[in-house]
Amino acid sequence: MFERIAIIGMGLIGSSIAHGIRRSKLTSFIAGHTQSESSTKVAQSLGLADEMYPTPEHAVQDADLIILCTPVGTYESLTSQIVNSIKPGAILTDVGSVKKYVIDAVLPHLTQDIHFIPAHPIAGTEESGPASGFAELFDNRWCILTPPPNSNPKYINKLKSFWEAMGAKVEFMEAEHHDTVLAVTSHVPHLIAYTMVGTADHLRRISNFEVVQFSAAGFRDFTRIAASDPTMWRDVFLTNKESTLDILGRFTEELLALQRLIRTNDGEKLFEYFTETRNIRRGIVEAGQDTAIPNFGRDNSKK
Amino acid sequence: MFERIAIIGMGLIGSSIAHGIRRSKLTSFIAGHTQSESSTKVAQSLGLADEMYPTPEHAVQDADLIILCTPVGTYESLTSQIVNSIKPGAILTDVGSVKKYVIDAVLPHLTQDIHFIPAHPIAGTEESGPASGFAELFDNRWCILTPPPNSNPKYINKLKSFWEAMGAKVEFMEAEHHDTVLAVTSHVPHLIAYTMVGTADHLRRISNFEVVQFSAAGFRDFTRIAASDPTMWRDVFLTNKESTLDILGRFTEELLALQRLIRTNDGEKLFEYFTETRNIRRGIVEAGQDTAIPNFGRDNSKK
Repeated sequence: MFERIAIIGMGLIGSSIAHGIRRSKLTSFIAGHTQSESSTKVAQSLGLADEMYPTPEHAVQDADLIILCTPVGTYESLTSQIVNSIKPGAILTDVGSVKKYVIDAVLPHLTQDIHFIPAHPIAGTEESGPASGFAELFDNRWCILTPPPNSNPKYINKLKSFWEAMGAKVEFMEAEHHDTVLAVTSHVPHLIAYTMVGTADHLRRISNFEVVQFSAAGFRDFTRIAASDPTMWRDVFLTNKESTLDILGRFTEELLALQRLIRTNDGEKLFEYFTETRNIRRGIVEAGQDTAIPNFGRDNSKK
Repeated sequence: MFERIAIIGMGLIGSSIAHGIRRSKLTSFIAGHTQSESSTKVAQSLGLADEMYPTPEHAVQDADLIILCTPVGTYESLTSQIVNSIKPGAILTDVGSVKKYVIDAVLPHLTQDIHFIPAHPIAGTEESGPASGFAELFDNRWCILTPPPNSNPKYINKLKSFWEAMGAKVEFMEAEHHDTVLAVTSHVPHLIAYTMVGTADHLRRISNFEVVQFSAAGFRDFTRIAASDPTMWRDVFLTNKESTLDILGRFTEELLALQRLIRTNDGEKLFEYFTETRNIRRGIVEAGQDTAIPNFGRDNSKK
């Protein structure tokens, strides 16, 4: 599908893409780069790339597909650094969790003959680093493409085929709308999970031992999300600030309303609210976006 | 261990206790009662009890262990209803998620020869009803006992042995402290999950289709919790109001602080916060309270 693919950044997503490319034989040569020396060594020992290059400029040379898999906060300087080494006609894409900022940070630096098509595979785990990747990560998951206006359909379709070959289903969206949708389904949930875990950690009245031991009644679900990569998430919040703060405001409003229902003993309205939220879970399971097995099938559950 | 055990309420917990009793052969007779006719039929068809009785008074007769497994809001009237049918010397216990309210609601109605020892097994799934139970639910989970002052140690130990035979580890706690710990590890996390799912549901700018399809990046974890039994959770919040509102206040405070860090672009402090929360996850996995497999091992994960 491509003669040479360059992957810049070999964390969970970058390394999973490398595994996915191998699985589906999408290129004859993967060029890799990752910033830290230790990650480079892990990537080399796992054979994630055919060659790991010491700089991103070297890695992107002659590639006809370049995938940025570093935290979005690095994109602007990274683009300036590599733009002169990119082959004319190449596709430049990314995997960042925010899309409007990415277009604003990358597009102005590019020449007309580089085809920039931002992408966001909706997949991940709480792990990070080059050893955490696996080829199946994108299977049956969505990948959202947010091509800027006037993008060439030929290159859009080529990138679409690439993600389909990775096992994903592809959807198109306008970048700003993407950022609102993801603020709801990902960014604010992460912020809330981080906050809940931080609140428990900071409480002095109950010990961390108690928090840990008695976590199975709900709290532990939050800790998985709150164990996600801190650099990535710092960048997400700083670069999708507007939507995050907007949805956060809505969330706080609803939380205060529920708080008031509790304070005023309004059991009827609480019951109604808790009944409605069940339906969304059902939809997610029916859409194949989560398992129907109780407790995610993780431990003692009925198999 | 007991000659006759009565289980009042045959939801997820009641039915799991029935399965657990059978598995470990802890009695020769299970007497059951559940309010709705349809649940009674399911319980009968599954053989959860040796006999299902039409009223709780009938079910508790001659039992030497009586376990209340109905929503905590029913305890007060239920106790008045059954107290005169309880055999002197019997142990009365429960499985409610709040403990101070339960003692206040039950204890004043009892005579001295009934040994009331409240209990809370920290286990569950997002499912409910008599068909959702399974014997392994309590394996390796904690069960907290909160005996009122002056409880007879002989009966406390007997109930402790019962829960250990169910597969659980037993811990003792003062009722008020229990309610604070659980507000942190369970009640507030549930309220927040309900709120997050409700917020997404009420947003008109993005469709429920989008919420469902793109839920894999965090949101879907919240929907599991927000699919829990509405009656049970209404009762929890109304009967552990003080601790819930207290912890909720702490949570809102921290959320506003993080919101401010985002608004003022304080990446350094955000990074610090997100790094600290990783450690709690590690503790939970090490304590055997959650799986170490990414994404709870639920779907595409590396096995």
